[in-house]
Amino acid sequence: MKVVFLGTSSSTPTKNRGLPSLMILREGEQLLFDCGEGTQRQMIRAGVGLRKRLRIFVSHMHADHVLGLAGILLTLSLTGRQHPLEVYGPSALKTFIEQLKDTFNFEPQFDLLVYRVSSGVVYRGDGFRVEAFEVKHIAESYGYAVIEDPKPGRFDVVKAKELGIPKGPLWKALQEGKPVVVCGQVIKPEDVLGPPRSGLKVVYTGDTAPTRAVIDVSRDADLLIHEATFDDSLEGLASDELHSTARQAAKNALEAGAKKLVLTHISPRYEDPCLLLSQAKEVFEDVVVAEDLMSIELR
Amino acid sequence: MKVVFLGTSSSTPTKNRGLPSLMILREGEQLLFDCGEGTQRQMIRAGVGLRKRLRIFVSHMHADHVLGLAGILLTLSLTGRQHPLEVYGPSALKTFIEQLKDTFNFEPQFDLLVYRVSSGVVYRGDGFRVEAFEVKHIAESYGYAVIEDPKPGRFDVVKAKELGIPKGPLWKALQEGKPVVVCGQVIKPEDVLGPPRSGLKVVYTGDTAPTRAVIDVSRDADLLIHEATFDDSLEGLASDELHSTARQAAKNALEAGAKKLVLTHISPRYEDPCLLLSQAKEVFEDVVVAEDLMSIELR
Repeated sequence: MKVVFLGTSSSTPTKNRGLPSLMILREGEQLLFDCGEGTQRQMIRAGVGLRKRLRIFVSHMHADHVLGLAGILLTLSLTGRQHPLEVYGPSALKTFIEQLKDTFNFEPQFDLLVYRVSSGVVYRGDGFRVEAFEVKHIAESYGYAVIEDPKPGRFDVVKAKELGIPKGPLWKALQEGKPVVVCGQVIKPEDVLGPPRSGLKVVYTGDTAPTRAVIDVSRDADLLIHEATFDDSLEGLASDELHSTARQAAKNALEAGAKKLVLTHISPRYEDPCLLLSQAKEVFEDVVVAEDLMSIELR
Repeated sequence: MKVVFLGTSSSTPTKNRGLPSLMILREGEQLLFDCGEGTQRQMIRAGVGLRKRLRIFVSHMHADHVLGLAGILLTLSLTGRQHPLEVYGPSALKTFIEQLKDTFNFEPQFDLLVYRVSSGVVYRGDGFRVEAFEVKHIAESYGYAVIEDPKPGRFDVVKAKELGIPKGPLWKALQEGKPVVVCGQVIKPEDVLGPPRSGLKVVYTGDTAPTRAVIDVSRDADLLIHEATFDDSLEGLASDELHSTARQAAKNALEAGAKKLVLTHISPRYEDPCLLLSQAKEVFEDVVVAEDLMSIELR
C-alpha cells in the first residue's frame, strides 16, 4: 500500500503546498481522498495517472477539499473514460456535481455514481474495506479508514510435518483456510496456522477538532494521517474553527497506539513547519509533516 | 503595461502548462483574463498577489477557463477583502457564482459585482478601456482588447519658443490640452503639439476559430495573444471544435498588422511547441509560444 500526498495546505494554496488531497494506491486500485483545486495537476506532477480503478472520497463540503473534483471529472470525460466512476461524500456532493453538469453543459459518457456516506463501511475492495467515521467539524464531516482484511496466520511447517501432511496442494488448501483429510483424519486450518494476522490500517481524519472517534478508529493503525492546521499558540483558534493543533494530533496518535503519524492540512502561515513538528514530537516520536508529492510505502 | 501568462494549456493541464489565464498589469490595476483551475496558485508562483484593483474577465463558460474563479473568490474572502470585486463575462457566469455561494454556503464580505458583457467597452480604467468582442466559439464567447487612451502629441519646443510662450506653467497647460493666452493672443494646444500618439493595444482572443472580428479589433495592435490549439495537420479538428491553428493565428496577426504575436491555449498533445512556432513563423515573424509564468513588458 502506498500513500501519495498531493496537497497538504489548508484553505489557500501556497508556493509549496497545494490544496488537500491524497491518494492511496493498493494493487491497482486508486483511492483519492479529497481533491482541492489543482489536484489533477498534482497527480501529473506525482506521476500518478487517472486509472480505471479510481474511486474518490470527499471528507466534507468545504471548497478547498472538493473544487478540484470538477477538473478531474471533466478531464476523465475528455480523455474518454468508459468505466463507471464512484464518488463518495456528504449529501451536498451530489448537488455540487449536478450544478457542474448544468453550468458547463457537461454529461460524462461514463456512469458517474455519487454515494452519500454515513459511518461504517462505504466501499469494499479486493482484500480491504474503506470505512467512514464522523468527525467534529462542519455538519457531515467524515474521516476515512482503509483497512485490509486480516491475513491467515503463519503456516507451521514443523507441525504440518508432524501431522504427516505432505507438502503440496494440501499445504496450499490449509493456507487458504480449507480443511483437508490425511489418512482418514480431518485436519483443520487452525491445527497448522497461527493466529490471523491483521492487515494494514491507514486512517485519514479530514478536518476535525480532537474527537474520540479518531482515536477509536485509529486503534493500532499503521498510519494515522491527522490534520494539524495550527501550533500550540493557536489552540483557541483551532477550537473555534474545529481544527486540531499538531500536539492534539500527536496525542490522538499516542492514545490510539498508532505506529506512525503524518501531519497534514498545514495552515499557510507556517512556511517552515518545524514548529508543528517539534510540538508533535514532544508527544509522539514517529511523526512527520507531510510535503506535497511525498509518498509513504507500507508493507 | 505588463502581460503575465499564468496558464497556457487547453482543456487539461500538463506538467508544464496550467489552464488558461493571463494577467495584464497597468499602473496598479490588475486585469485577469480567464481563470482556469489552479490560477490562484500560478499567481503565487508568478509573484503576483491579489490586489485591491483586481478585475476579472471571463471569455466563455468552458470549465477550463473559469473553474479557478471559485478558488480566487474564496481566497479573497478568507483573506478579508473589503473592496468590491467586478467580474465580467457571459450570462452563465452569474449562475455559476450563485451556485458556488449556495453549495459552499459562501457569502463574501466584499461586494461581488458580476457583469454580463456584450460587444463594446465593458470597463473604463484610468487611461485605458477594456473592449469585449464576439468571437467564433460556443455561444457567448468573447475576446477582450485592452486599449490605452491616445496620448497628446509631442510638444514642439522650437515652435513654442517662436510663439513667445515662456517655459513653465503655460507649457504644461498646453501639454495637457488647454489653450493659453500670451500677450493677448490665444494659443491652442494643436499649435504646439504634434498629432496625438496612440496608446498601447493588447488583444486576447479567448477561444475562437479564425474570424474577421479578431482582425478588426487587432488593427495595429502592439500585442495579439491568439489561441493556437493545433498545428496544420489538425486544421480539420480545429475547424470542428471552433479553435485555431498556429498558422491561422499568424495569418490574423499579419492581416491586422499586429506588431507581436503570442500563441497560447496549446493542446496538451504538444509537449514541445516548436511545430506550432515554425508553422506560425512561416507567416509572421515576430511570434512566440507562451510559456507559463512568461511575462512581456510593453512600453
